[in-house]
Amino acid sequence: MNLALLFDDDFISDNKVRLYGRRHQQILAIHKSVIGDTVKVGKLNENIGIGVISALNENFVELDIDIELNQLPPAPLPMRLITALARPPMMRRIFSAAAEFGIKDIVVINTNRVEKSFWQSPSLAEEKINELLYLGLEQAKDTIMPTVTFYKRFRPFVEDDLPALLTNTKALIAHPQSETSCPRGLSEHITLAVGPEGGFIPFEVEQFLAAGFEAIDMGPRIYKVENAISILTAKLLV
Amino acid sequence: MNLALLFDDDFISDNKVRLYGRRHQQILAIHKSVIGDTVKVGKLNENIGIGVISALNENFVELDIDIELNQLPPAPLPMRLITALARPPMMRRIFSAAAEFGIKDIVVINTNRVEKSFWQSPSLAEEKINELLYLGLEQAKDTIMPTVTFYKRFRPFVEDDLPALLTNTKALIAHPQSETSCPRGLSEHITLAVGPEGGFIPFEVEQFLAAGFEAIDMGPRIYKVENAISILTAKLLV
Repeated sequence: MNLALLFDDDFISDNKVRLYGRRHQQILAIHKSVIGDTVKVGKLNENIGIGVISALNENFVELDIDIELNQLPPAPLPMRLITALARPPMMRRIFSAAAEFGIKDIVVINTNRVEKSFWQSPSLAEEKINELLYLGLEQAKDTIMPTVTFYKRFRPFVEDDLPALLTNTKALIAHPQSETSCPRGLSEHITLAVGPEGGFIPFEVEQFLAAGFEAIDMGPRIYKVENAISILTAKLLV
Repeated sequence: MNLALLFDDDFISDNKVRLYGRRHQQILAIHKSVIGDTVKVGKLNENIGIGVISALNENFVELDIDIELNQLPPAPLPMRLITALARPPMMRRIFSAAAEFGIKDIVVINTNRVEKSFWQSPSLAEEKINELLYLGLEQAKDTIMPTVTFYKRFRPFVEDDLPALLTNTKALIAHPQSETSCPRGLSEHITLAVGPEGGFIPFEVEQFLAAGFEAIDMGPRIYKVENAISILTAKLLV
């Protein structure tokens, strides 16, 4: 935890927070902090600053907070990620890594090769996903919460919702054996579509191409979905 | 499993293998293959080809193998990765991702901020590491086994072993707030050093710089070690 995210409920006065649970344990047991130590803090969707530990016990930690949190969080990555729903442990890593990388717009879709059972996973509950996004933000010293949108049906997504997403963005779909290699170091906004394990089926690729996506190749290796997302994000933008 | 790695012990005749365990389960339960189906195979450290399922039951699968495995594995990544020993679950993901990315030379070192207990982890047993490397190779349809070297003492590593590693390679160390940003798309051989959670201590950075490393910056975000490795590898080379 490189930053403790603060929520409205944490404030017990204008400039004092009391933290329980994970953030308390991190500060107590992992950082091994003591009273008087400083902790980097940031209010969700707001600025970053410093807290000073004013109380610390087995149950909670209290921090005195700068009245002005006056440091901006790091710039967001100008990317929308469209990913097929992955198996739950991988999806969890994708959520926290996306938040860590600064992706602020995550779109999770169904495709032919997504196992239907993945949609029943308890880890798709909003509060579970939020926990993962918080972890990613805290890792990266960021405060700006990504949005996550689910589309459980591919065709309505592609036909009705996708066109509106494609204004002022360069739309790329990762697809093996495409003629174009993944470009490097772009400066425009990117919409990146990544398929499930086993890839998109040809019909799906055609739909993306018809919507204006360009297919990009990642070379002869087949990467795990989570690694493909990291590699493409890094090559394109980070 | 995009390729089944074959070992000498698997061969029951010149052109027939019998597979048990993980590979058998993958072919039976996950790929749901049947007799007559083809399976992409590759001999460890050799070429790639096709196997045809000639027997399949609850205990094993038999494949008839092309006498000539005549397809080359994907080109290795021209990179040596020097990484501080990470906590065991992360180290496991680093090993399999490095193999997946095509890194063939993995050097794991001790540094000041590596928790001593990590060196006692049962997951550092050679056969455990090999399993992870095999998984990464099979994911990427590769057959060429990476080497993994451990240095449990930092100073002897830096003073005695590191200089010999630095001929004909561009040596880079990831270090926050360096003046140089991580370059993109290099074509030379890279030796990349990545620190533990919390980073290298200043003395360690000085030692690397004195040995000829250039420090590179990753921007304002702090990434998990495994993600930092993926991002740097992708930006530099993939």
